[in-house]
Amino acid sequence: MQLIIGNKNYSSWSLRGWLALKAFNIPFEEIKLSLFSDEFHLELAKYSPVGKVPVLVDGDLSVWDSLAICEYINENYLDGKGWPADKNNRAVARSIVADMHSGLFAIRNEMPMNCRAKRRVELSDKAKQEVSTLETIWSNLRTKHAKDGDYLFGTFSLADVFFAPVVFRFSTYGTQLSDAASAYYTTMLAHPDMQAWLADSIAETEVVAAGETGESV
Amino acid sequence: MQLIIGNKNYSSWSLRGWLALKAFNIPFEEIKLSLFSDEFHLELAKYSPVGKVPVLVDGDLSVWDSLAICEYINENYLDGKGWPADKNNRAVARSIVADMHSGLFAIRNEMPMNCRAKRRVELSDKAKQEVSTLETIWSNLRTKHAKDGDYLFGTFSLADVFFAPVVFRFSTYGTQLSDAASAYYTTMLAHPDMQAWLADSIAETEVVAAGETGESV
Repeated sequence: MQLIIGNKNYSSWSLRGWLALKAFNIPFEEIKLSLFSDEFHLELAKYSPVGKVPVLVDGDLSVWDSLAICEYINENYLDGKGWPADKNNRAVARSIVADMHSGLFAIRNEMPMNCRAKRRVELSDKAKQEVSTLETIWSNLRTKHAKDGDYLFGTFSLADVFFAPVVFRFSTYGTQLSDAASAYYTTMLAHPDMQAWLADSIAETEVVAAGETGESV
Repeated sequence: MQLIIGNKNYSSWSLRGWLALKAFNIPFEEIKLSLFSDEFHLELAKYSPVGKVPVLVDGDLSVWDSLAICEYINENYLDGKGWPADKNNRAVARSIVADMHSGLFAIRNEMPMNCRAKRRVELSDKAKQEVSTLETIWSNLRTKHAKDGDYLFGTFSLADVFFAPVVFRFSTYGTQLSDAASAYYTTMLAHPDMQAWLADSIAETEVVAAGETGESV
């Protein structure tokens, strides 16, 4: 099985597909394409009609989009254990994931993922409201499932995968979080596979624009 | 079970949740909130932390976001039959759905859903490219599964649900489609539940802006 991803420093969607496989110990070959190369779209067109990373290639099957990849590995490699076992928890997990998948545009636009940089931006009211909504969701879920572990539904699940890029954003942009949300953020950032992704991001040399890597305040 | 939706004329996400239930004959009570009322967010806050329609309320459980609703009813009311039965077809179905769910922004921005209006707009190159991608996906899938029926994977599935709002957009904006894509569009538009939604949209009297209803070219 191969996972086609973009630059680790920038590609937030790639991170989701990659972490879903890594964190659940599913063996795969990582194929990294440069987001900035001429070959990117040509190469991707072999696997997906929509030309985006990540793409999971399993034999003659291509699965594109990180959420479809998560559902695919949940059904075919995790025996349904990627999501919380309880049906109501599973529905809530999919709800918060779907909302992250289709929304939170202010956070995404105003704080583009750049794992290795340190930046400060003045957030719009809309972005502040989205951060606040996430804080509420994270702290409520974490409190509710605290007896089972430190992740959103106790043990690590596909729901956590979806918030991984936001965790890197909050880290590099220095976003102030409530204590409860901050505790979840710390748990996620310390995950060994998050640290491995971060190390790989730092090791990458390609940059979007000259001078932007490692920019400090 | 209740489904909370917005105005049928405008709320493309509501259409997905509603059609998923209707087309699979799952009984539910429809609760319509005006997108333009002061009470909209207050009322919604009772059911969802993100304040968006649709929300499915099943006993003491709230499921928000149309994709999470689809997965929920697939697991709990359709015994998995909402998606194609074959594992590879199911993965492709979820891939195209996830891409629609998280993308196709040019189509969404340049052709906001307004079921009862007739409009013409000059599409950007990006929107034209998205239309072209959809045409390719629709015609390839429809050809591949033609022996099983007229929908994307033969018989009607949750994949079709996700393209319902685009079908109304293509109808009201007069989008020219290739023959194969047009045949799928015609199948979808003729679905009795699509026609029922359209009739309800026409019957609604609320408008976003004075004079916009039924605008003609």
